[in-house]
Amino acid sequence: MISSGFESKMKDFKLYLKKMKSYEEAIGLIYWDMRTGAPKKGIANRSEVVGMLSGEQFKMSVSNEMGEWLGYFSEAEQDARLSRMDRKIVAECQKEYDRSKKIPQQKYEDYVVLTSQAESVWEEAKDASDFAKFQPYLEKIVATNLEFIELWGYEGHKYNTLLDMYEPGMTVNKLDQVFGALREKVVPLLNAIKASPVKPATAFLRQSFDKEQQKKFSLFILGEMGYDFEAGRLDETVHPFATGLSPGDVRITTRYLMDDVNSALFGTIHEGGHALYEQNISPEYIGTPLCTGTSMGIHESQSRFWENMIGRSRPFWNRYYKDVQKHYPGQFDAVSVEDFYRGTNEVKPSLIRIEADELTYNLHIMVRYELEKELFSEAISVADLPEAWNEKYRDYLGIAPSHHGEGVLQDVHWAGGAFGYFPSYALGNMYAAQMMRTIRKELPHFDELVQAGNLLPIKDWLALKVYRHGKLLTPTEIITDVTGEELNPDYLVEYFTEKYGDIYQL
Amino acid sequence: MISSGFESKMKDFKLYLKKMKSYEEAIGLIYWDMRTGAPKKGIANRSEVVGMLSGEQFKMSVSNEMGEWLGYFSEAEQDARLSRMDRKIVAECQKEYDRSKKIPQQKYEDYVVLTSQAESVWEEAKDASDFAKFQPYLEKIVATNLEFIELWGYEGHKYNTLLDMYEPGMTVNKLDQVFGALREKVVPLLNAIKASPVKPATAFLRQSFDKEQQKKFSLFILGEMGYDFEAGRLDETVHPFATGLSPGDVRITTRYLMDDVNSALFGTIHEGGHALYEQNISPEYIGTPLCTGTSMGIHESQSRFWENMIGRSRPFWNRYYKDVQKHYPGQFDAVSVEDFYRGTNEVKPSLIRIEADELTYNLHIMVRYELEKELFSEAISVADLPEAWNEKYRDYLGIAPSHHGEGVLQDVHWAGGAFGYFPSYALGNMYAAQMMRTIRKELPHFDELVQAGNLLPIKDWLALKVYRHGKLLTPTEIITDVTGEELNPDYLVEYFTEKYGDIYQL
Repeated sequence: MISSGFESKMKDFKLYLKKMKSYEEAIGLIYWDMRTGAPKKGIANRSEVVGMLSGEQFKMSVSNEMGEWLGYFSEAEQDARLSRMDRKIVAECQKEYDRSKKIPQQKYEDYVVLTSQAESVWEEAKDASDFAKFQPYLEKIVATNLEFIELWGYEGHKYNTLLDMYEPGMTVNKLDQVFGALREKVVPLLNAIKASPVKPATAFLRQSFDKEQQKKFSLFILGEMGYDFEAGRLDETVHPFATGLSPGDVRITTRYLMDDVNSALFGTIHEGGHALYEQNISPEYIGTPLCTGTSMGIHESQSRFWENMIGRSRPFWNRYYKDVQKHYPGQFDAVSVEDFYRGTNEVKPSLIRIEADELTYNLHIMVRYELEKELFSEAISVADLPEAWNEKYRDYLGIAPSHHGEGVLQDVHWAGGAFGYFPSYALGNMYAAQMMRTIRKELPHFDELVQAGNLLPIKDWLALKVYRHGKLLTPTEIITDVTGEELNPDYLVEYFTEKYGDIYQL
Repeated sequence: MISSGFESKMKDFKLYLKKMKSYEEAIGLIYWDMRTGAPKKGIANRSEVVGMLSGEQFKMSVSNEMGEWLGYFSEAEQDARLSRMDRKIVAECQKEYDRSKKIPQQKYEDYVVLTSQAESVWEEAKDASDFAKFQPYLEKIVATNLEFIELWGYEGHKYNTLLDMYEPGMTVNKLDQVFGALREKVVPLLNAIKASPVKPATAFLRQSFDKEQQKKFSLFILGEMGYDFEAGRLDETVHPFATGLSPGDVRITTRYLMDDVNSALFGTIHEGGHALYEQNISPEYIGTPLCTGTSMGIHESQSRFWENMIGRSRPFWNRYYKDVQKHYPGQFDAVSVEDFYRGTNEVKPSLIRIEADELTYNLHIMVRYELEKELFSEAISVADLPEAWNEKYRDYLGIAPSHHGEGVLQDVHWAGGAFGYFPSYALGNMYAAQMMRTIRKELPHFDELVQAGNLLPIKDWLALKVYRHGKLLTPTEIITDVTGEELNPDYLVEYFTEKYGDIYQL
């Protein structure tokens, strides 16, 4: 029963949303637990628990009650009484409601089963480099997504509807423009780097490093970034991740490689960047759909800002290299800070996205973007993917995989149906560079702050400009409010040109 | 909507119960996480999540749907078609339904708030040894329980209704009899021990012990017991506990004291005993109210069987003492296995229940039992408790606390309203000794098995006799089926007399 009167309806609506968020929080904790050490014999039962809780949350999102509230609050008279925050909350609920209502229940359930099966098949196919094994699943997933797009509706390119799920408002036109501009500069820069006589030494990064020391150092750097350990914790998983259960509980994980001094550290800084965002969302949004990052691209901009713009910068290493030397006694006696900095920033085309340097990383993303776009314009079919993949790698990176396991089968995303997700990673790099340009104006001693290990003013600036807003602002509002202009790839190009021009003496 | 037809109604009913169990599993995981390291700033929000999930589970237990099913399955015609398992399931649901329905919603919610406040007040009162501070809360808790008892109904003594919550079927008459018989023998035995010239050396138990080694040794012994690490894990908490989320995920915790070689180990064995029970419940009960131990007393019998009957036995140390010596190199070179065994079994009246030896432990329980019984017959009032407590300690243990923090305020149970719970601990000891008597007949080489470190046949025997049944059988059915007679305190007396007669040369 929905009570009458604007105020009391709003109160009931908020309680209802809080309950939905509570389901999400419980589900989030269960996933965290599954990845960090839940006993394997409990997984089957636990998956049913997740299924039940997700089902309850989903039912609430499309219930008649929800429909009535959305109808009521969208009436002109009531809409005029909504605060900015409440209007955004209603809009978010409406978006989820519409999206979910348009897919027949049975079709959606079949799709969940399909992607879940596809993920196991993908794993086997990847290990065997056998695309044919995975192909029929991927064909069904693409076909189902095409059906969903018809049901959801689309403007312009069909792929726009998928992009909008991860980056609200993003379109093929916009991406073609920004990725085009970026590629136009990055490919020649990469060629210049390849031609440069400068070849940074990297062997010292590949010694044997004590795991406890790696962990200590990761925790130390997290503390320096202003990560709140009373509102989070660091654990170990095969694939690092961050999960914001509530602003008071944002957990991250990393992976320790015994023969790589940087892997765990940059994994930690990256996830730490995601975590700072979630820890610093304004408390007023707790229990509402606004209590999360505004988009995958803006979220990724924060992880990459910390990982690359700060963590891979010369001022950072001028400050923290002595701590590396202290944590691994004797192992870096013969290595100068400059050599460490250059080694850490080596640029080298490679086949695996998640191991790529920050420059070529964007090219890996563009390969995927082009292929997804063509799949959903039906310019290519799933059967064409392996050859198209290899060709794009040759075009963009100048190398091609020797088998599909290190090629078209390398990522899990497509098996899970996550088309439209990949661009977020490169968007994050562009947003980050654009914000970097602004922060350097507003905190003119930016490099000195980093070099002094005084990172908190940087965190506070990002909290003020980005973190606290949660999902109140759209990605475009955020980037425009912060930097005074819409997404512009030139700042990332400038950043790369300056940084790698210096390192590679171009 | 309840579907028609016995089969389909039963199917729906089981799905409904599975959903209730899923809520319980999610709640159980959240509590485990809160105790093992959830960030403190997330606790307030997480508590609301628990509140929501518990509320959903509770609503299901007293819903009209539940009422209709219980009505239907209790009709003679349908009841006759129920399997033994299903009849027990219906009975369990009926019991919970009746219990919950009889308390007005508001009264119950007020009580939850009261006990939650009382727990914080108790903590302060305990630290300050200030009973007066806690007294008004305890008075309200007792008064509310007396009201509840009127609503629930009772047979004979009012306290019986509370006992039944933890030990179905247990009564004051029965406890008076068994505790009386036990005390009659234990008090003189304790006096004889006190008078004995034998004083086991214990200083070697109190050296400094490396935590990692303690953990390794705890894990080793758990493995020896047959604890399934693919269906559980060991963590560290201030208060050790076991939690069975499902038979595939039964987690335990222990506490490492740096200056005590035995504390973490016996904590682990004790919780491991609880865990073996939950890990080995028959899979057919998963998702039903039968998928747990049958009572607190029987559960405690399993933890104490492993902790005391096995873990504190001479054959056990004949086998495992060399592992203690190996784990703490040099620290036990001068200590013989016999000295270690005797030191580990030192009997000494003390004030704090959780630190008591296995003999005097039962006297600590009897003090609490007598006081609870008198509170609920209204023979004494809450205000009388401190003096009555001290007097009972003098009577039973020959010592009295110097302040209430180590006296009447030492346990959290009353603050949480858990009256009727304490007897379970002593019942566990009696059940365990009685089962020990039987297992020695059925596995005639019991001591040799332990001495050979061949503990799995013992685990298998307990799984067959106790664990697998979950809550299908009542405590009385279990003890009678296993041992051929009802609860009989003589076996615990025999066990004590033999064991301590030997150690103290009586």
